[in-house]
Amino acid sequence: MSWSLNEEKVFKDPVHKYIHVQDRVIWDLINSKEFQRLRRIRQLGTSFFTFHGAEHSRFSHSLGVYEITRKIIAQFERNQYPDWPVEERLISLCAALLHDLGHGPFSHSIEPVLDMHHERWTCRIIEDESTEVNQILRQVSPDFPEQVASVINKRYAKPIVVSLISSQMDADRMDYLLRDAYFTGVHYGTFDLERLLRMLRPYQGRIVVKDSGMHGVEDYLMSRYQMYWQVYFHPVTRSSESILRNVFRRAKELYMAQHPFQFMPGPLAELFEGRLTVDGHYMLDEALAQTALMQWSREKDAILADLCQRFLTRKLFKYEAVEGDPALKLAEMEQKLTANGLDPRYYMVLDAPKDLPYDVYIGGKTNRIPILILNTKGELQEISEKSEIVRSISGLQRGKAVLYYPEDQEDEQENVD
Amino acid sequence: MSWSLNEEKVFKDPVHKYIHVQDRVIWDLINSKEFQRLRRIRQLGTSFFTFHGAEHSRFSHSLGVYEITRKIIAQFERNQYPDWPVEERLISLCAALLHDLGHGPFSHSIEPVLDMHHERWTCRIIEDESTEVNQILRQVSPDFPEQVASVINKRYAKPIVVSLISSQMDADRMDYLLRDAYFTGVHYGTFDLERLLRMLRPYQGRIVVKDSGMHGVEDYLMSRYQMYWQVYFHPVTRSSESILRNVFRRAKELYMAQHPFQFMPGPLAELFEGRLTVDGHYMLDEALAQTALMQWSREKDAILADLCQRFLTRKLFKYEAVEGDPALKLAEMEQKLTANGLDPRYYMVLDAPKDLPYDVYIGGKTNRIPILILNTKGELQEISEKSEIVRSISGLQRGKAVLYYPEDQEDEQENVD
Amino acid sequence: MSWSLNEEKVFKDPVHKYIHVQDRVIWDLINSKEFQRLRRIRQLGTSFFTFHGAEHSRFSHSLGVYEITRKIIAQFERNQYPDWPVEERLISLCAALLHDLGHGPFSHSIEPVLDMHHERWTCRIIEDESTEVNQILRQVSPDFPEQVASVINKRYAKPIVVSLISSQMDADRMDYLLRDAYFTGVHYGTFDLERLLRMLRPYQGRIVVKDSGMHGVEDYLMSRYQMYWQVYFHPVTRSSESILRNVFRRAKELYMAQHPFQFMPGPLAELFEGRLTVDGHYMLDEALAQTALMQWSREKDAILADLCQRFLTRKLFKYEAVEGDPALKLAEMEQKLTANGLDPRYYMVLDAPKDLPYDVYIGGKTNRIPILILNTKGELQEISEKSEIVRSISGLQRGKAVLYYPEDQEDEQENVD
Amino acid sequence: MSWSLNEEKVFKDPVHKYIHVQDRVIWDLINSKEFQRLRRIRQLGTSFFTFHGAEHSRFSHSLGVYEITRKIIAQFERNQYPDWPVEERLISLCAALLHDLGHGPFSHSIEPVLDMHHERWTCRIIEDESTEVNQILRQVSPDFPEQVASVINKRYAKPIVVSLISSQMDADRMDYLLRDAYFTGVHYGTFDLERLLRMLRPYQGRIVVKDSGMHGVEDYLMSRYQMYWQVYFHPVTRSSESILRNVFRRAKELYMAQHPFQFMPGPLAELFEGRLTVDGHYMLDEALAQTALMQWSREKDAILADLCQRFLTRKLFKYEAVEGDPALKLAEMEQKLTANGLDPRYYMVLDAPKDLPYDVYIGGKTNRIPILILNTKGELQEISEKSEIVRSISGLQRGKAVLYYPEDQEDEQENVD
Repeated sequence: MSWSLNEEKVFKDPVHKYIHVQDRVIWDLINSKEFQRLRRIRQLGTSFFTFHGAEHSRFSHSLGVYEITRKIIAQFERNQYPDWPVEERLISLCAALLHDLGHGPFSHSIEPVLDMHHERWTCRIIEDESTEVNQILRQVSPDFPEQVASVINKRYAKPIVVSLISSQMDADRMDYLLRDAYFTGVHYGTFDLERLLRMLRPYQGRIVVKDSGMHGVEDYLMSRYQMYWQVYFHPVTRSSESILRNVFRRAKELYMAQHPFQFMPGPLAELFEGRLTVDGHYMLDEALAQTALMQWSREKDAILADLCQRFLTRKLFKYEAVEGDPALKLAEMEQKLTANGLDPRYYMVLDAPKDLPYDVYIGGKTNRIPILILNTKGELQEISEKSEIVRSISGLQRGKAVLYYPEDQEDEQENVD
Repeated sequence: MSWSLNEEKVFKDPVHKYIHVQDRVIWDLINSKEFQRLRRIRQLGTSFFTFHGAEHSRFSHSLGVYEITRKIIAQFERNQYPDWPVEERLISLCAALLHDLGHGPFSHSIEPVLDMHHERWTCRIIEDESTEVNQILRQVSPDFPEQVASVINKRYAKPIVVSLISSQMDADRMDYLLRDAYFTGVHYGTFDLERLLRMLRPYQGRIVVKDSGMHGVEDYLMSRYQMYWQVYFHPVTRSSESILRNVFRRAKELYMAQHPFQFMPGPLAELFEGRLTVDGHYMLDEALAQTALMQWSREKDAILADLCQRFLTRKLFKYEAVEGDPALKLAEMEQKLTANGLDPRYYMVLDAPKDLPYDVYIGGKTNRIPILILNTKGELQEISEKSEIVRSISGLQRGKAVLYYPEDQEDEQENVD
Repeated sequence: MSWSLNEEKVFKDPVHKYIHVQDRVIWDLINSKEFQRLRRIRQLGTSFFTFHGAEHSRFSHSLGVYEITRKIIAQFERNQYPDWPVEERLISLCAALLHDLGHGPFSHSIEPVLDMHHERWTCRIIEDESTEVNQILRQVSPDFPEQVASVINKRYAKPIVVSLISSQMDADRMDYLLRDAYFTGVHYGTFDLERLLRMLRPYQGRIVVKDSGMHGVEDYLMSRYQMYWQVYFHPVTRSSESILRNVFRRAKELYMAQHPFQFMPGPLAELFEGRLTVDGHYMLDEALAQTALMQWSREKDAILADLCQRFLTRKLFKYEAVEGDPALKLAEMEQKLTANGLDPRYYMVLDAPKDLPYDVYIGGKTNRIPILILNTKGELQEISEKSEIVRSISGLQRGKAVLYYPEDQEDEQENVD
Repeated sequence: MSWSLNEEKVFKDPVHKYIHVQDRVIWDLINSKEFQRLRRIRQLGTSFFTFHGAEHSRFSHSLGVYEITRKIIAQFERNQYPDWPVEERLISLCAALLHDLGHGPFSHSIEPVLDMHHERWTCRIIEDESTEVNQILRQVSPDFPEQVASVINKRYAKPIVVSLISSQMDADRMDYLLRDAYFTGVHYGTFDLERLLRMLRPYQGRIVVKDSGMHGVEDYLMSRYQMYWQVYFHPVTRSSESILRNVFRRAKELYMAQHPFQFMPGPLAELFEGRLTVDGHYMLDEALAQTALMQWSREKDAILADLCQRFLTRKLFKYEAVEGDPALKLAEMEQKLTANGLDPRYYMVLDAPKDLPYDVYIGGKTNRIPILILNTKGELQEISEKSEIVRSISGLQRGKAVLYYPEDQEDEQENVD
């Protein structure tokens, strides 16, 4: 097996113009059945309810992460930076390409309910000898699958490789900000990728940013901040996720209580029983999940059927910001729902989205890799020490609670603005 | 029921920036279950195999066609052109929005095999009293559903309304060229929409183009020409469509021959038996079709299982342009396949894509509505009489035959260029 | 004279796609000789030395400010907001279009040296009866020129009209951020104009922002912040401005000392003598200033000739951030220059650019109109009270001093990054 | 002198994102006074009258041509194509960068009147030992200036180098189509540069196109066709050029007749007398030409003053397509003008723009280098033999005559559409 293709192959990509493939291993991994399955997992879960253009898949995104990683490494090689270990190229590219392999349908939305951790699944697929991905990687060397997996679960010996795809400014985040901005149509997520990449330097086992790139980093972090509040935490999206979680929670409960399901395909049964196999995971894509939602919308259980119908026809829960004590508000709503014959366990969700556009490392409180600025004297400084703007958004966890509940009487569906 | 919303609502759209909704009927139609179903039908069928970004749905496209129609009419109203019948606004918008309602999964690809004509289905859904869409339209007037349907099947009394969504330069084509270009990432499909719209005039029962807009029309038709050859007729896409057609042909044959399917959901059974109901059509989305492909890839019938697997893992047929007599080539290939134990009925497809970027009306040979240029003296001229460029692409049916067949031994998957 | 054109006229514009002209007065103003003169004044002074694309003129920008103002007003009229005084449309459009009429060559760069205040000149041109602009405006009503001028110098009776073109988020700033971003090619300056405009509301004599538009305002202010540091305050630009200022200072001194200039056109003589006429102002465009620079590069005075040559051939001053006491640094440099035979009055410039992306109104300290957010209860709140991000950039005056001086021995010209 | 820079330098460019400079010679040439002068020559002459954004200079364009050439060569080198002579890299880059050095103010517009051939001037500046450009080139080798000049005047021994910057699909045309489209804001001129570049191959002393790139070439040629008719031949632009030509014709006649000019700078006098020096050419930029126009608008000669005023205030000539015999029309107009006291020699222009988007080589009729398509068998075919579209535009010289003449009575200035 030769490691380099006779002729570079390209994929047309709307975000990066072209994805360039130069290695046979990469080409083969893209053509593996486990990677092709990512075409059937959407990148942004239920965001399409808010932004109808957001129908892109993890397949596209994974190619994008690979391409950005390839560009970073090519720059390091072109400039022959001594701190970049040239022998780490292939493993970095493989890890970048495969890092999302383990995602299930609507993954972030339903993972908490079904205990299906995507990163663990990614590693399992890579390491399981029955998969095509494993077989392709093994041709590089017998322990190559394990090594690739260790990059993904952040245990690889060289942290510089890990930081390429798992830091606070990595190829993963860079691609999804640009890609999600492109497909939703919002412009908040755009930043100057080419300039940012040119400012990266391998330095003492880490990837750092040249100090003239500080404003570029600010720009990138502001994109992140804006995408969080405009897209990822949009209440319409959160509302649909709440319903979806309740659907799967209810279905699992019914299944465990031996409800006679008309439609219960193997992989879902495995999942509910906590014994999902690698093959079951392969079959568990969004087509299957959507089909289950459609079939279950005809199930006899009224709650399950209603929740599924709501999801399919976008009759989502209404939302309201909670001022004051959430407990009071919850109690009040619980009473109201019960009076209307609705089970509060499935028709009421309190939600407080939280994540940080940038997480400052203070006294070991975070395990995220910080963004470091390298000055001309070779000194490193954590970005929030230098930038007031970064400081201003670092603290913004803005956990304002929102309450979701049905309100059908009035047709008051939300739209973007 | 009031016909106008208190406040204009908007959807963020990557192609038109925003979709503006001003009428309650339109708002309600968008929220109907039949329209929401279009989120589960992709706009470009299997093109995502060639252009991974092409994962957008008919939902997005339908909103786009509505928006362009709205803009055209708003321009006509703003300028108070006497030839535009102002009372036709709402029916035009409804027809624009709903024109794709009848599409099934991978519609263009499998329609010929399953005899499922999408335009007839669109009208049936609109006219069937059980649908939400019908109920919303009926609130305008009892015969409004029939009227909207008659615009879609081109029998409406006022041809100017029909031509808004079904002519050779209509809102449908304008949106899909721009949208498909955006999501695939190719630039060929872009043209100056705003300028083109400003050049349109209602005139004697038709929509015509002011003569200073001639180069704009040329630009639009060239976009169409390029999209045909670069995207819509791309051999990788055609190859995957061939496989898909053979999957459904094989499945239908097995079903009619009482093959004991493990997975045969109601709507598919109805479809194979030629008795698909409106409710069955509602359930028959791409999630169901993809799930069937996955389940059938484990069926006992070797041909069906293999074809499904090929589709799911992108092990498509190879292709070869046919020079000389296709019959000879076919006979030769038939022999070869049979020798390899492959059934030529399912493993060999001769394909000659043909459609015209612009179809000149000559002596009644076409039933497509031509593009007419209006000069300052009020005279009309068919565009190909004025433009050499349009003439040059009008004749281009370029039916070069291509033969598709499996070649697994060598890993020679195609990519874009 | 009719106030409305028979048919809307358009100009193609790269930033707004089209500029729409609907009024004869606007059309005539655009065609006046004083407005056409703006084609000969660049928008960004000497920024082209840093960003070679920045060659656009105040003519383009003025059309853009007009277009944004037109869009804001059209939105107010379409929604029939009661707080918008409809009779103020034309005066608003005229003031928007003409607000930059008074700019001289490289205006911001050399205004301080030559005491040529552009806003005062704008008003003078509008009010002087000899100008075409004045004659066109007078056709509306005899006092219309004075009224338009009063909008520009912020004394107009209705502050809502003033705030359209002179507040911290006005049509002027919106256009120049987008336009300067487009022509320089940096992406920092882009924000979602359409969304921002939709969020504006006339309210109690001011223009305020609906609260769901807060993130849009943050986005706009961040663009401003980034453009300040990446473009407007770029040291290469500041360096060339320093040289330019010294050229004109030296030329003025020589002129006052009766130096026998080979080239001293009337308008420059008038300017140096402090008696510039309206006609002299008309002739004083950048073509004349550039020609003077070229001619003076052959003058006998060595300092003037050298400074002009530096400017024409981009042999700019080198720069260095000043740490510690500037006085010490200056004394040291003065000595060094004198030793090299260079006059420190012309070959050394200490510069500390300062302006604020957003200026918080605290206890009367600013006369800038703040950005107010309108909540659903009809209450107003100043943006920096609501947004931590705005707060973080409000204080950023970052006046780090930079010292400019010649260093020819080593060819160390700066470029963008 | 070392030929390679320690660190790559970049310029921000709106069209190519960044211009990359890797060689000291290139860096020094960019910083030479003759190259910096190109900032003072606009790329599109008087097109800014029609498209106000078209204010970009030949400086920007020259950098763009250099960058495209650099990219083409980098691709050839990366793929190690044997037909590319690697030693030709530097000369190709220098010729690409410098090819427009000889342009005078409004060059294409006034060259015919003043007999100032820009290509000859480019070579003269390169070869004249007094210029900075010459001195920089000579450091490579004593005959390097002559060699670079020979590439520009197409006499260089290796035609493949010539064809990089002077063929029907060269770096020059590629850059100006994209750049002019960007700055005017029209979209017609855009094509997929990256894809086109990837399809180029050095082959037997020429640059040819891989056959899968045929549609890309069609797309490029259609851009050219559209830019010709929408931008370059726009009648408003042609009208202003006619006036400009008449200004300089009149000025020259007056000068030769010893008219006592108030303003007649040396370089213009040299030019009128046919003895322009290299130093005079350096001083002869658009600032000087514009200043002359302004000063001459106050000259005593009524014709010269009026024509200059028309140009400065955009009181251009009206235009009318000539149907039938132009001689008749001309005679009629001559009479009319004379009756109105206007000299037909300066107030009437018959114009028939002609150039070809693509010029087919037939029987030696053209000296333009054709576009050749390389098929997989190594055979070459001229593009118009393969493409009907190219054939359709090849013949389009469309020389419809247009008559320009003043019409001031009615204010009927033209705008874009």
